This record gives sequence, C-alpha cells and structure tokens, in this order.
Amino acid sequence: MDVLPEITEILVKIRNRKPLIHHLTNFVTANDSANITLAIGASPVMANDPLEVEEMVLKASALVINIGTLNHQALDAIIAAGLTAKEKGIPVILDPVGAGGTSARTRAARRLIETVMPDVIRGNLAEIQELAGQSGGIKGVDSTACETGSERVAISVAAALGCVVALTGRTDTITDGKRVCRIDNGSPLLTSITGAGCMATSLVGSCCAVSGSRFLGAAAGIAVMGVAGELAGKSLAAGEGVGTFRMRLFDAVYAVTPHLITEYGKITCEEC
Amino acid sequence: MDVLPEITEILVKIRNRKPLIHHLTNFVTANDSANITLAIGASPVMANDPLEVEEMVLKASALVINIGTLNHQALDAIIAAGLTAKEKGIPVILDPVGAGGTSARTRAARRLIETVMPDVIRGNLAEIQELAGQSGGIKGVDSTACETGSERVAISVAAALGCVVALTGRTDTITDGKRVCRIDNGSPLLTSITGAGCMATSLVGSCCAVSGSRFLGAAAGIAVMGVAGELAGKSLAAGEGVGTFRMRLFDAVYAVTPHLITEYGKITCEEC
Amino acid sequence: MDVLPEITEILVKIRNRKPLIHHLTNFVTANDSANITLAIGASPVMANDPLEVEEMVLKASALVINIGTLNHQALDAIIAAGLTAKEKGIPVILDPVGAGGTSARTRAARRLIETVMPDVIRGNLAEIQELAGQSGGIKGVDSTACETGSERVAISVAAALGCVVALTGRTDTITDGKRVCRIDNGSPLLTSITGAGCMATSLVGSCCAVSGSRFLGAAAGIAVMGVAGELAGKSLAAGEGVGTFRMRLFDAVYAVTPHLITEYGKITCEEC
Repeated sequence: MDVLPEITEILVKIRNRKPLIHHLTNFVTANDSANITLAIGASPVMANDPLEVEEMVLKASALVINIGTLNHQALDAIIAAGLTAKEKGIPVILDPVGAGGTSARTRAARRLIETVMPDVIRGNLAEIQELAGQSGGIKGVDSTACETGSERVAISVAAALGCVVALTGRTDTITDGKRVCRIDNGSPLLTSITGAGCMATSLVGSCCAVSGSRFLGAAAGIAVMGVAGELAGKSLAAGEGVGTFRMRLFDAVYAVTPHLITEYGKITCEEC
Repeated sequence: MDVLPEITEILVKIRNRKPLIHHLTNFVTANDSANITLAIGASPVMANDPLEVEEMVLKASALVINIGTLNHQALDAIIAAGLTAKEKGIPVILDPVGAGGTSARTRAARRLIETVMPDVIRGNLAEIQELAGQSGGIKGVDSTACETGSERVAISVAAALGCVVALTGRTDTITDGKRVCRIDNGSPLLTSITGAGCMATSLVGSCCAVSGSRFLGAAAGIAVMGVAGELAGKSLAAGEGVGTFRMRLFDAVYAVTPHLITEYGKITCEEC
Repeated sequence: MDVLPEITEILVKIRNRKPLIHHLTNFVTANDSANITLAIGASPVMANDPLEVEEMVLKASALVINIGTLNHQALDAIIAAGLTAKEKGIPVILDPVGAGGTSARTRAARRLIETVMPDVIRGNLAEIQELAGQSGGIKGVDSTACETGSERVAISVAAALGCVVALTGRTDTITDGKRVCRIDNGSPLLTSITGAGCMATSLVGSCCAVSGSRFLGAAAGIAVMGVAGELAGKSLAAGEGVGTFRMRLFDAVYAVTPHLITEYGKITCEEC
C-alpha cells in the first residue's frame, strides 16, 4: 500500500488552499503551534473565548484540541466547539497531553473523547495506553513507557474508539484500526524541546483540513514532522544543540516538498 | 515632508530612556512582543491582573492593548486600564487582532474604540475595513482583503475616529487623517510567522512612548519593523526559512540604527 | 570553600535522573522555562488547573512558583500546591517577578513567602530589596536598583526568612544567611531578552530537585545560567544580536558539562 502519492498531494493542497486551523490549546506551546502551522502553509487561529469559539470553528477547516494546560472551567466551551465541528464535518484532532498524569487530566481527556468523538487522537505511548485503560508510564506530560507492543495498543484504541490514532515515538504508528502506517523518521532531539508533540498535532490538523481521509491526513502530518525533524537534526554542526535544532525545525517544515518527503520518508503502510 | 529626522530621533530617545511599555495582550505572541520591545531598547511588562493593571499603567510610558486571545471577562479591566492611560496622557495603542473574524471580537474592538478612544490603531486591511463598517476579508486573524484603496480606508477611519491608523500590508500606510506616510519596506516572510503584526504594534508603542506626536511615533515603529524585516529577509541563505528569519528579525530590530533607517527606509510622507 | 565538585555532581545527577519540575508560572515566558528545563536535562510540566496542581506536585521533584503574570484568583491554588510540596519535602523555588512593581504584586509575593515559606527565592536586586522591606528601584518587572550593597541585602533576607536567596545581577549572590557564593559569569545580553530571570529560576529548580542542599542547588542553577549565558554571548559574530543570543543560550545550557563549569565558572564561596 503506497501512500506517498496521497501524502505529497496533501502537502500541495495545503499550500494552495491555506486552510484555517482553529486551535484550543495550551499557553506553553501556542506560539510554536501557530508558527509550525504557518510553516507548513496553513493559517492558525487560537481564539478561545466561549463567546466566539463556535463561530470561529465554523470558519475553520480543522479544529485542534490540546489539553496541555487545560482548565476545567474551559472544558464546556471546548466540548461545544468540538461538537459544532463534528456536526459540520470539520475534522477534530485531539492531543490528550499528559493523560494519565493526573486524574483530572485523564477524566478531561476521556470526557472529550466520549462527547466529541475526535477524528484523530495524537499522543505518545503513555497517553494512548491510558486511553486504552492500561496503566501508562508517564512523568508529567512525557512518556516513559516501553515502546514494545505500542503498535498493538494504537490499533486497539483506534478500533475501540472508531477514530484514527497517531502514536508518536521512536517509530510513529498511524492507524484507523484496519490499516497501519509506520514512519521511521525523526530525531532524538525532538524529545529535548517542548512542544514537539503539540506541533505534530497541529501539522496533523493542517493535513486533515485538506484531505478527505483522516488516516492519510494524520499520516501526512506525522510524516512532515518526522522528515523535517530528521533533516533539522542532521543539519546541526558541532556545538549546536536544542536551540538551533528548534529554529531549524521551523525552517525544515517550511522547506518540506513532495520531493523531500519522497526522498527521505521512511513510510510503510499495510492492512492490519 | 521629510520625517526621517524625527523617526531617527525617536529611535535614539528609546535607547536613552528605556520607556516602560505596558501590554495587555494575547498568550500566543506575548513572548515575541516582550522580546521585540526589549530589542528596540524599551522595557516590556505584561501584568494583566485587574488588581494591578491600573497601578502598572501609571508607571508606563505607553499602553498596548491587543485582543488576539481576548476573553470577554477581561474586557472591563482592559477598558479601565485604557481610560487611566488616556486620563494621564499616556499613549494607548490598540491592535484589533481579528476584528471581523467573529462578531464577539468585532464588538470588543468597537467597544474598546468607543470607550477608550485609542491614540493609534495598528491593524491589517481586513481589520481596519471592519472598523470602517465595511466588510473586510478576514480568515481567522489574517487579512485576505485586496489592498487597492487601502490608503483611502485608513485615512477615512483615522478621520472618523480622530486617531492615527497604522495599516500594515505590502505598503504600510500611517495616517492621522490629514497626513499620510507610506512605507515600502518589509518582507513577504513577515506573513509566514505568527506575531509580526503584534510585534509591529509593540514597536509603535515603544516609539509613541518617547514622541510628542502619535503620528510620527506610529510611523517610526512601522519603519523599524519594515527595515528590520527587510534586512532579516535579505540575510537568509539557501535552506534558511521562517525559523531563521524569525531569529534574525530580533537581531535586526536590535541592530537598527538611525543610519540604517536612513539608508534603507523607503518612507514618503505628504498632506492628504 | 570549594563548591565546584558538588555543582558538577548536581549537573550529572540531573542528566541521569531527569527530574520532573512542576511550574506554576506566567504565560509570557512559560515556553522558555520549559525549554531551558529540557536543555539542562530535566523534565518540565506546567499544569495549573486547581483540580490537578496538588496531584502533579506530588509527582514532581521540585516546584517553581513564578508570579510574572499572577492572577489573584489563582493564588489560593498556588499556595495549596506550595504547602503540599513543603509537607512532602519537595523543594519550592519562588520567583517574585516584579515584587515592588505594584502593591498587589508585592502583597502576593509576601503572602506566598509567609504561607509557603519557599526553600529558595530567586530575584533581582529590586525584588529582593522589596522583600527586605526596603524601597527597591523597579520599573515594570526590571530592576533599576544600584547594586552596591546587594550582597548585604541578600544575606539579611536569607537570614530573616530562613531560606536561600539567589540574587542575580552583574555579580550573582547565592546565600543561606551563613554562607555566600558569588558568581561572576553571564552576559549583558541577558537583560535584553525576556525570561532570563525566569529561566534561571527553572534551572535552580532543576538543580534543587537532585541535591540535598538548597544552597548548592541554587548555586548550581545560577552557575549553569551564568556560564551558558557567557558562552552564548561570546559566540556572537558581527551582526548577530539578541535573537541569535537567545537561541545559543539554549544550545549552551544543553552543552554545559562539568568540564565547562570547571573551566569557565568564576565561582567563589565563603562563610558570611
């Protein structure tokens, strides 16, 4: 199953259409999410006032919900926005940041999933395990879980929830429960900057905004992050570290072309 | 009408006086606004607790109000801060981010303008058109409006509201309804990073803080952004993109001198 | 009194243990605090919902409280988190950003100190003077106080409050009221970017998380910031300014080794 043609087509479409990606996200990495959305060629907006979220959602081509610094008082407005998006067929991408980290956070993630039924969930292994009802190894918002069997976890969560799961880690797994896509790009430095996961989720939102397939949209977003991360990591000279890497990551997403995805992407897909 | 001497004098004054610029701004680009304010030589503060905004405003030399992620519950405190500033003669600069994007946002911008009567409004064409009561082309918080006739819109809004309008776009227009200043610097990359508008507004605030003229202060801030953006854009080597551009933009504002403004500034002013 | 062996040991321990550092911090520099915490090798989390702060604190190895954009409505939850940390012996580091800037801010800082009794207070001279009941020179959140006698102020505050004071300035002073450590590294550019103080506080938190001594932990964090800042500043080529400096600062903290601290650290300690 060769998904490269679809993935590269998605990239071209984003640059042609500049889709609006509405974010209900955290205050730590909002700037990074906005800049990576612009870097891939889409248009970010972060309005979160309950008075305007629903109206803004209706103008957007995708809705990204990220619970990194979720306040429980904001949850009702987020759910209303999510339901509005679902009703109108606008793809909803959930980043359950730190699910399993505290019980309030796990509850919020579960409530969002049950009520909104997001099209795509993008998380690390610990977060996805938590949603599967397994005890995930999580420290704060970072995963410490062992990756063996992570693909099985992703597939079972996708099948159980009827959505696409994009589980990022050393190897990224994107699955809708029937098909699975493995991406072997990236850089170890992605775990040494904040917001790499949030940015991947924004890229998934940007790709789903222009694709009829949530599965291919999720795969495209993760592929762009993986290839860009890998190229940014390889570009570093002696003495350059996380600061330079972070800057080059934006350069690399901005510079990603169908050709680069084709040349560097280590992407395999198959039926489950 | 040669405004270069006044603009360069403003730059020198900022570096001598390091004026305090109070920001009531959004959580997406607050860090960028703080860093650009420091880069030009002023001192930013972002306190937004209703208990302290008015006290902080009284210590400031300018107040920047930016509604990028405005919550309606914060609006009363923002208006109180704005009125305090106006009473004391401290210049108030409004950035009506995304006005026209949602009705709540448009109402908030209008209410701020009616009650506070800001000295300067800095926005893109879609936002300024909205304030003129015309239908502006806006997607999220980015302008999609056609720029033809934008100067006429800026002049009519400035005249109607009795304030300075700084309309940024391919050519920037700064006008108080009687005089108009056109600035032809900048870089297309400024639309590919988040916060370029917000940063321009912070620079306008920094310049108005040390100038007796809001018109010249606004022109100076936009000129610094334009020249710095242009030099940052021209500095990019092959493979460098939005990440590097963003970093160099801070370098360039920090490095801007009267000499550079004089050498690179494409600034023309005339009576309307 | 040679503290270099302990400081370098702390650095090694952070990289081995990757301690979780919980932050209750401001929205302007949260991203910088998260990235600097990752750069030194620790793991940041920024959860601030009252429903989860205490549960998250119990998983953390240090708690950083930063009042940069404190809202008074959040104060009770912050105090509850601080008391939970103290009960469990988790070090609490307070950054009283802008204390003295407004009366609400000063009251909040004092209330936090009286109720939580932080282990370490990291501030500039104006902020520490304010806590000493002296009139500090402060503009917004930046110190304008004269540094003569700053060491005496730090020692008297540390002795009076029974905590460690880390007063950063041209020379940094770390003291527990009985011992004093002076660090003469850094760069003037640290005052030209936002968040340098906040980042120093995050590094102090990261170091205190793995050290039995709050005094040595504070000294280690400030030493890492000082040496990294100095190396970042020295690395700048012609035309490079605050933007490049900021990026290199993250590179430099990431690259700091016991060897670099030993080679470049200008650290002297003695009994008071």
